[in-house]
Amino acid sequence: MPHKVYLAGPEVFLPDAVTVGRSKVEICARYGLIGLFPIDLDAPAAGPTTSPAIFQACLAAMHYADAVIANLTPFRGVGADPGTAFELGYMLALGKPLFGYTNEPASHAERVRSALGPLTLAQDQLFAADGCAVENFELFDNLMLAEALLGRGTGAFMPQGPVADPGRDLGAFERCVAHAAGELVRG
Amino acid sequence: MPHKVYLAGPEVFLPDAVTVGRSKVEICARYGLIGLFPIDLDAPAAGPTTSPAIFQACLAAMHYADAVIANLTPFRGVGADPGTAFELGYMLALGKPLFGYTNEPASHAERVRSALGPLTLAQDQLFAADGCAVENFELFDNLMLAEALLGRGTGAFMPQGPVADPGRDLGAFERCVAHAAGELVRG
Repeated sequence: MPHKVYLAGPEVFLPDAVTVGRSKVEICARYGLIGLFPIDLDAPAAGPTTSPAIFQACLAAMHYADAVIANLTPFRGVGADPGTAFELGYMLALGKPLFGYTNEPASHAERVRSALGPLTLAQDQLFAADGCAVENFELFDNLMLAEALLGRGTGAFMPQGPVADPGRDLGAFERCVAHAAGELVRG
Repeated sequence: MPHKVYLAGPEVFLPDAVTVGRSKVEICARYGLIGLFPIDLDAPAAGPTTSPAIFQACLAAMHYADAVIANLTPFRGVGADPGTAFELGYMLALGKPLFGYTNEPASHAERVRSALGPLTLAQDQLFAADGCAVENFELFDNLMLAEALLGRGTGAFMPQGPVADPGRDLGAFERCVAHAAGELVRG
């Protein structure tokens, strides 16, 4: 029985979410995995439409899945989509293997600098222009997300070169799928 | 034995995080709860300093806690801090009671409009100026976070009036603590 992988990520908010979802599921199939996309790709209009029903459907898909592949590309802020972050934490607590990627390879500190302006160093801590501290661990996002992925040794997959459309590019996703497929088959 | 509540939130990044943390723990104590702040408030400098150690300490605190009270006030974006969102998902999967508050009472759609500009309606879906869909459920944040809190009937606690310092204000937090204390004692 092929392994089932929950495909968490903010691409569900793209106007062409169904097209991107189908591409992700096809890539999974090419590596022997069943991709579970949060939107029903066969009958998008027939899926749940209320927020409690969507919530329950996502929880059910995570319980049904053997692992998660999370798209942690920043979404409407310097970091990952909070919904995706929530799901990554959920899957960690369920004890399921976590895999992830980001199409924004800059470190968390560099992202905060790009968004908010120059960082300052005070008493060995880095601070952003908003007056708050910035984690300075050379990680791609908040340490909870980054360390959750590093626990499996690989961390987040990233693009190997410039990416024209970070919201849709599937290069890092495909390398993540290839790696996840190998790990899941080895068990 | 008093109930132990994990205090998740981006106030750990404030320059006066220890002071805010102590205030939160004091408020918890006033309602008979033990607040577990992610930073060691007795000996801040003696706590873990590497990202794997901080990660493990936060996971341990969540397992030790009986419940979580999450500060879901937006942080460096339109939504909750991804690390806090991660921890909320983690605690849901552990089956522990979730409580939360936000000092930004605007709905998710209104927040996106404020940050990115006018929203447009197309085929019954709301879209932001970034071209991506906006959840339009009258919830305060991404539905996974909002529904996780609504599962207990209360949703996120919010300020009862304008808040001068959303990063530090503890009014909504205190009402959330009072409610959580009642719920946890009733069991």
